Amino acid sequence: MIERKETKQRMSRAVIHNNTVYLCGQVAKDSTADISEQTKTMLEKVDILLFDIGSSKEQILSATIYIKTMNDFQAMNKVWDSWVPKGQAPARACVQAQMAREELLVEISVIAAI
Amino acid sequence: MIERKETKQRMSRAVIHNNTVYLCGQVAKDSTADISEQTKTMLEKVDILLFDIGSSKEQILSATIYIKTMNDFQAMNKVWDSWVPKGQAPARACVQAQMAREELLVEISVIAAI
Amino acid sequence: MIERKETKQRMSRAVIHNNTVYLCGQVAKDSTADISEQTKTMLEKVDILLFDIGSSKEQILSATIYIKTMNDFQAMNKVWDSWVPKGQAPARACVQAQMAREELLVEISVIAAI
Repeated sequence: MIERKETKQRMSRAVIHNNTVYLCGQVAKDSTADISEQTKTMLEKVDILLFDIGSSKEQILSATIYIKTMNDFQAMNKVWDSWVPKGQAPARACVQAQMAREELLVEISVIAAI
Repeated sequence: MIERKETKQRMSRAVIHNNTVYLCGQVAKDSTADISEQTKTMLEKVDILLFDIGSSKEQILSATIYIKTMNDFQAMNKVWDSWVPKGQAPARACVQAQMAREELLVEISVIAAI
Repeated sequence: MIERKETKQRMSRAVIHNNTVYLCGQVAKDSTADISEQTKTMLEKVDILLFDIGSSKEQILSATIYIKTMNDFQAMNKVWDSWVPKGQAPARACVQAQMAREELLVEISVIAAI
């Protein structure tokens, strides 16, 4: 009834239930990079994670984006807008918050259909 | 399987899947207004959006409220409490966070049944 | 179709729909305690709430943790890691945010299967 992917002690990277998948918060691959690169690699990780479970960015229902400073809002959105599949954008909220590590500039929580 | 409403490049205003609707983050109609008025018009936008897809505030499952300063917590709650239908309140969390635009005092993420 | 538990004017402590339960934000029982104790009693409240509706921590799908300061991240995680059932960890995101009351150090939003 509940299916989990890449489960460690602290969290699973994805949890599936009722045709819905909940991803753990995704951050940049390289946290020393700037906001554009961090957003790009964060979204690549979302792509890979969704692909691995048989979903895709075309099936994202809801995304919550946490950004360290709203000064980076436009640069983040530029990468986001080009990543979102035309006509299949999810619901989204974006607020300012600091992440677990000081150098992380952006994090995303995703709920998708599967 | 997935139905979207008012889809633009960045986000959809509502995404429906599995009898559940995810709304994009709703903010005040007029961001120069005070917290009471911002909360009021934000919730009116939730009402309209839910109505347009055949849901209603009586069917909200979960609400996440982001408030710019907890100094506004009581004033926001006063409007919230009078808006929530008696006996049909959703699960709720409220934390302090800054929104995309400096002048926005409150934002809400809603998941509802449909 | 929608079942609510402990509904007050402001919120319900749990809302069930479509085999999924949404809990309201849970905080420590005693907000004067340190981060370890606050995390412990917060998670105890999650346990009780899930038990009361016929779910359990083994069925958590997604958890969003808000922590007042990332200085407390390790201490919070120590309690979290020992609480999470081995092999059944949920998806998780954790960001820094201030809660409704100044003294609260941590809050959690939970979505679980039922």
